[in-house]
Amino acid sequence: LLSPATVGHDAVVSDQAVVDALVTAEVGLVRAMAAVGAVDAAVSREVGDLFGWVGAHSGCRDHGVDAVELATRASGGNPVIPLVEHLRGRTSERAREWVHRGATSQDILDTAIAIVARNAVATIVGDLERTTNALAALAGEHRETTAAARTLTQHAVPTTVGARAAAWARGVERARSRIGRCGDELPVQLGGAAGTLAAFVTDVGRDAAAALPTAFAAELGLTASAPWHTERWPITELGDALVQVIDALGKIAADVATLSRTEIGEIGGAVGGSSAMPQKANPIRSILIRSAAVRAPQLGATLHLAAALAVDERPDGAWHAEWPTVRELLRLALGAAAHAAALSSELRVDRGAVRRNLSLTGGLIVSERLAQVLEPIVGRDRFRALIAEAGDGDLGARIRALPEATGLDVDELLDPSSYTGLAAELAEGARLREVEE
Amino acid sequence: LLSPATVGHDAVVSDQAVVDALVTAEVGLVRAMAAVGAVDAAVSREVGDLFGWVGAHSGCRDHGVDAVELATRASGGNPVIPLVEHLRGRTSERAREWVHRGATSQDILDTAIAIVARNAVATIVGDLERTTNALAALAGEHRETTAAARTLTQHAVPTTVGARAAAWARGVERARSRIGRCGDELPVQLGGAAGTLAAFVTDVGRDAAAALPTAFAAELGLTASAPWHTERWPITELGDALVQVIDALGKIAADVATLSRTEIGEIGGAVGGSSAMPQKANPIRSILIRSAAVRAPQLGATLHLAAALAVDERPDGAWHAEWPTVRELLRLALGAAAHAAALSSELRVDRGAVRRNLSLTGGLIVSERLAQVLEPIVGRDRFRALIAEAGDGDLGARIRALPEATGLDVDELLDPSSYTGLAAELAEGARLREVEE
Amino acid sequence: LLSPATVGHDAVVSDQAVVDALVTAEVGLVRAMAAVGAVDAAVSREVGDLFGWVGAHSGCRDHGVDAVELATRASGGNPVIPLVEHLRGRTSERAREWVHRGATSQDILDTAIAIVARNAVATIVGDLERTTNALAALAGEHRETTAAARTLTQHAVPTTVGARAAAWARGVERARSRIGRCGDELPVQLGGAAGTLAAFVTDVGRDAAAALPTAFAAELGLTASAPWHTERWPITELGDALVQVIDALGKIAADVATLSRTEIGEIGGAVGGSSAMPQKANPIRSILIRSAAVRAPQLGATLHLAAALAVDERPDGAWHAEWPTVRELLRLALGAAAHAAALSSELRVDRGAVRRNLSLTGGLIVSERLAQVLEPIVGRDRFRALIAEAGDGDLGARIRALPEATGLDVDELLDPSSYTGLAAELAEGARLREVEE
Amino acid sequence: LLSPATVGHDAVVSDQAVVDALVTAEVGLVRAMAAVGAVDAAVSREVGDLFGWVGAHSGCRDHGVDAVELATRASGGNPVIPLVEHLRGRTSERAREWVHRGATSQDILDTAIAIVARNAVATIVGDLERTTNALAALAGEHRETTAAARTLTQHAVPTTVGARAAAWARGVERARSRIGRCGDELPVQLGGAAGTLAAFVTDVGRDAAAALPTAFAAELGLTASAPWHTERWPITELGDALVQVIDALGKIAADVATLSRTEIGEIGGAVGGSSAMPQKANPIRSILIRSAAVRAPQLGATLHLAAALAVDERPDGAWHAEWPTVRELLRLALGAAAHAAALSSELRVDRGAVRRNLSLTGGLIVSERLAQVLEPIVGRDRFRALIAEAGDGDLGARIRALPEATGLDVDELLDPSSYTGLAAELAEGARLREVEE
Repeated sequence: LLSPATVGHDAVVSDQAVVDALVTAEVGLVRAMAAVGAVDAAVSREVGDLFGWVGAHSGCRDHGVDAVELATRASGGNPVIPLVEHLRGRTSERAREWVHRGATSQDILDTAIAIVARNAVATIVGDLERTTNALAALAGEHRETTAAARTLTQHAVPTTVGARAAAWARGVERARSRIGRCGDELPVQLGGAAGTLAAFVTDVGRDAAAALPTAFAAELGLTASAPWHTERWPITELGDALVQVIDALGKIAADVATLSRTEIGEIGGAVGGSSAMPQKANPIRSILIRSAAVRAPQLGATLHLAAALAVDERPDGAWHAEWPTVRELLRLALGAAAHAAALSSELRVDRGAVRRNLSLTGGLIVSERLAQVLEPIVGRDRFRALIAEAGDGDLGARIRALPEATGLDVDELLDPSSYTGLAAELAEGARLREVEE
Repeated sequence: LLSPATVGHDAVVSDQAVVDALVTAEVGLVRAMAAVGAVDAAVSREVGDLFGWVGAHSGCRDHGVDAVELATRASGGNPVIPLVEHLRGRTSERAREWVHRGATSQDILDTAIAIVARNAVATIVGDLERTTNALAALAGEHRETTAAARTLTQHAVPTTVGARAAAWARGVERARSRIGRCGDELPVQLGGAAGTLAAFVTDVGRDAAAALPTAFAAELGLTASAPWHTERWPITELGDALVQVIDALGKIAADVATLSRTEIGEIGGAVGGSSAMPQKANPIRSILIRSAAVRAPQLGATLHLAAALAVDERPDGAWHAEWPTVRELLRLALGAAAHAAALSSELRVDRGAVRRNLSLTGGLIVSERLAQVLEPIVGRDRFRALIAEAGDGDLGARIRALPEATGLDVDELLDPSSYTGLAAELAEGARLREVEE
Repeated sequence: LLSPATVGHDAVVSDQAVVDALVTAEVGLVRAMAAVGAVDAAVSREVGDLFGWVGAHSGCRDHGVDAVELATRASGGNPVIPLVEHLRGRTSERAREWVHRGATSQDILDTAIAIVARNAVATIVGDLERTTNALAALAGEHRETTAAARTLTQHAVPTTVGARAAAWARGVERARSRIGRCGDELPVQLGGAAGTLAAFVTDVGRDAAAALPTAFAAELGLTASAPWHTERWPITELGDALVQVIDALGKIAADVATLSRTEIGEIGGAVGGSSAMPQKANPIRSILIRSAAVRAPQLGATLHLAAALAVDERPDGAWHAEWPTVRELLRLALGAAAHAAALSSELRVDRGAVRRNLSLTGGLIVSERLAQVLEPIVGRDRFRALIAEAGDGDLGARIRALPEATGLDVDELLDPSSYTGLAAELAEGARLREVEE
Repeated sequence: LLSPATVGHDAVVSDQAVVDALVTAEVGLVRAMAAVGAVDAAVSREVGDLFGWVGAHSGCRDHGVDAVELATRASGGNPVIPLVEHLRGRTSERAREWVHRGATSQDILDTAIAIVARNAVATIVGDLERTTNALAALAGEHRETTAAARTLTQHAVPTTVGARAAAWARGVERARSRIGRCGDELPVQLGGAAGTLAAFVTDVGRDAAAALPTAFAAELGLTASAPWHTERWPITELGDALVQVIDALGKIAADVATLSRTEIGEIGGAVGGSSAMPQKANPIRSILIRSAAVRAPQLGATLHLAAALAVDERPDGAWHAEWPTVRELLRLALGAAAHAAALSSELRVDRGAVRRNLSLTGGLIVSERLAQVLEPIVGRDRFRALIAEAGDGDLGARIRALPEATGLDVDELLDPSSYTGLAAELAEGARLREVEE
């Protein structure tokens, strides 16, 4: 109700999704036990059937475990303890002993968070692809739509709308590749009480125990890893990548909100209304993305703190701080990506406003070029004086009045659209690639 | 499900509590309109009766507004718009026009957050009082229980268990007084679309409009204020005070967790078990408080950022970032305070362990006093050599073997309990008061 | 070189200022010893004379302790150890033993930080007073200068330039009162090795030791306190107040930067130039304040983390994290306050631009009032249609064409300056006071 | 003086280093101009010789530009403007026009930060390699040194000292590979006033301008990139990687500080002394690393905020917030890595203390295995009772007294060193690799 940036985009990180993932991790472990030959396949099948196993990426569905009940019983701060009790209570005697066998709560919880993150990242990546596609189309369409570039809030030199959109797209694309790789590398957690896999070794032997993390990962569509109970880079790298996603979208939202200002008006569309002020067209998607962008970095910082404070073989508070933080970051990235995908396809460039703003300074927007051309012929002092007085009148006439300016094509000199450098190439990404090679 | 620090302590900040507060704010505004004479008391009564008005501090109950439905319809990022539609739909034609009359969504939302915060703070303050009472009792009981003080992880000099508990209590008491004052000062928000109260002036006249914030505050048990739409110190001061509460409790939790370590064992009680390792007694309340303490400061930072970025007469994202952040901070403070109240009454000092640890360094814990006494008579170099070798044997015997030590009461010199300075007085708070005057 | 927000405003927190404060704390302690009768006044005078004691608020000057040398020798992470060696090396034999007598490094360092903070806060408070004075004058001058209020980036309803300036002033004034009080309450630290004052009791007796913190505070112009070695609220409350100062100034800077935009242009002055683009007038003071505002909240969060992690009687890292953080926050607040004082007196309101922007929506800026007046007579649907079409033509003519509008003073209805509610009163602070009572 | 974590390790990020990098960037640009054929090689040689050009990675030395003077003159918040004036003032007329030609201040400043970061990262990577080498040696030496693993502060099950050291090494190695890659990918910035390279196109033609970033990168030993004036992922990815380095070292420091506690004492070495308490051996390197770890995450968050708030073609404050923050993060990582390299080679394992602690619970540390073995034969209730009572006496005797335990090798059952699972293999990294394939 009070998380406006994410409303309606967070099903994959809901309490139900978390419970699904917890059950999936427990079932996946029994299946891995079967895969390494430690338990009869019939046991693994029974457990899978009982708790709705669908497959590596889908996990368990319709397992009959209730999120609210679990939360209520997790008063010790750990939902895995009541979950295991619940699962064991519904299992046959033969299978019961293999539920959660050898594992610690952290194995299941970390793995469940990896599952939830993997699923959320898939959704995020899809929305980011839609975003870059829309932005690339926008960049192409407006590759030569000359517009004012602004630095430190002031008109600086011309650019093109397409170059700006291409820069947005580069930021999103970089973030997408990073979060995508992160999603592909999410590891299972499997180390037992303190990361030595000792109970597994006792139960299934040294070789089978050593093979178990890989089998567990295969069952769940995650990657294998040495235990990372207190080496938390899988969490901080995920967090960093999520924050980077939100940064890239936040930059777009900051630009769109600014360019939507009543006085600027270069971008429209993607707006919401106001009940009391019927004339208003608020850039609501940008606002919601921005609200996420103001919050995300500090959540990322909390994950780093939790990593740095991960003392012992399971820390006294730092690990517990991760759970709600990772989930909130996933939620914000899901919301921001969904809004960005919609925003990037809904936004409309008002070419008239772009043109009107471009001419607001009466030609001073190309003063950098004027300096290049005129300073050598009239000297720095006279040039500066010319610029300083130009606010009061016609810059073109003043230039034409310079004796030294005879022969200059003043119209061309003052035309912003002939001073956009490589903007069009950058918009296309053509010269960009060249530059990067 | 994944907010372990707060499980079961957050009813006053639940979605239902937020909806209650939103309805209360809307009803309070109609009542304020009646109080300043702008609307007939019958209208105000009708609206109050319809939506379950109970009184200034209790607000509205059983109003029939559903949190889930509101969240679903708040897709524009603002639950007030669908709320107003809902309320108007259930009101008589006469009363309808007075619902939300002249107000902006921010007036209602900020006021609702103030109501929720006021209620949460009352609960927090109660738990903090229980905490300081228990800690004061502990401090009194153990005012002279000599224990090792530790600095930079190493035994330093003696202190008393009571002095430590009294320091905890001072931190909690300071935090309590600050959050308490903050709770008493929480203001209503009432400024209309952009903080000028223009629509109110049009509707009810200049004088009644000017009186409206005070009347609104009186109805709701909050304080009056000039509009603070983009001057957000009421939010950041609340946030700072909440973080300070969690800091003070986090310090206690850090000490308790440390003193509960298997090797130290000076504090027991307030523990939870482990399913796989039946011998374990985990200091679970301290761990949950610590998990809140690792998260809270960054949430407080987000509120400050939102304040600093509050551009215009309503900002493009910063305000929206506050809602979930304030709520999470309240939730963490509620959880931490509840755990601390329980912890402070449940914890048990193991006098045997305290004594055993105190003697671990074989008397070196009073080496500061030894230096005061012995350096003047044997010189710095010989004294340092004595200390350096003391790890290997009996410090007392070595001192007695010094020719210069004849006549010294070496037992007294090595007795930690006679080197606790003002610890007992600090534990009682007696000398403490003297010190502060 | 790379701290642009603070260039030239940070002498009171320089390395030299820190060394001055460290020496002042050491000398103050000897003087306090004399004040409680523990040491001969001649000793105290010798030490004071030797190290340039000037007085309670001025502390020590020209003491001959070199900051660079101290930093070099503080390799153990603590500048007090080499400082004490240095001071003792320069003192007579009689006085030597009273230098740093009974104290721990933290006593001196925390007290020195309190001294530096007290001095910095005095400068900050002065600049904030200059700021509020200038803003109050601005508010008075422009109490009735009608301007567009903007919410969510869009023109909303009218306000006045003065109402906006008064809101800025209220934020600064609140922050000033809070940091001012904080500066007045800064405590000395005096607890000895672990906060029990044990060495002092041994050295000077129980009563004199109990009186020592008060005497120490009197010498230094700070307040007395029980030891707060690991109860860090004096630091976090200072940090919170500094961040609040920067928030309040950051809000102003955000508005000024926005209102300075080429397309908006309502505020000029307080600008800097560009070497490459001679036409530019960058709102550089606002930019530098904003750069501080983006950084400060996270520094405040670090102080809270340090407080919450202050385990034992001196923690293993948290305390050390405070020093550079407090200093950087002081530096940012000093820089932001100095820039704000200059900005608030330099900024110029462009009445022409204000008026031009106000009319940009062709009257739609008063659509809230139009709805109040017209909806009742033409119905909601026809009114909404009228507003929706109004972008295309003359709103006044459309209203006059309504049969129901006969007799309405349409010019008055569309005049923004008659729809500013209590803006002028809020600008004066008159009605504001009334509201707050 | 007040940055204890970094004292003596920050020469590569000093003011002098920053000025070196700024000069290097300016000279590199002239050389790139020559490389693309835009300027005569003699001009480039003149500028290089004048300002001490050494080579791509060494940059400029002995250039005669003074850091203090530059800082003083950078009152506009930008040191590049006075730098360019200074450089031009010392250059021949022919060369003068090619200094800073076509560039904007941000081109030079961002590139200089990339140079500084590249150099700092090289130092950091070296120290991290030393750290992992020392940790790997430690892991090998202690692969089978059985020790208590601790979870939630309590003894849990056995592990080995080597397994713990190997986990530390994995965290450091991951961080090293990430910061190393980041260092290799640091890009030049070259876009001109607003990222379109327009002035370059005017000056040197479209093709040469397009080739310029690659040439610039080649001169400086950085990578080429499209302009990233407001797409700040090169900065945030650097920041994230630096924080990850500090996290990984912070985890080690947390463990070492804990294991150094007087009551635990499993790790010694790498200590510092105390002036007042001569017996103390403080784990000072760990403390300094921890102080960095408490600060770094919030600095990383500031960089993300700056990225998300990078509005327009150069933002109004966010960019300026990056400079001191990046530098402080580099400084912290340099300090932490240097301390970690020293710490990891200096630390000593006290095998006696390790063994003594392992036996502290009288065998309960293997209660997980006891449950596996005994619960099936005596039932859960009797087993739990046995464990609960075990605190009072001899666990072995109690087990032997069980009728069902006949034939069990109770000594073997209670031997922690036979319940370390794959700890030795994880210590060697052998099974670890297997697990990861």
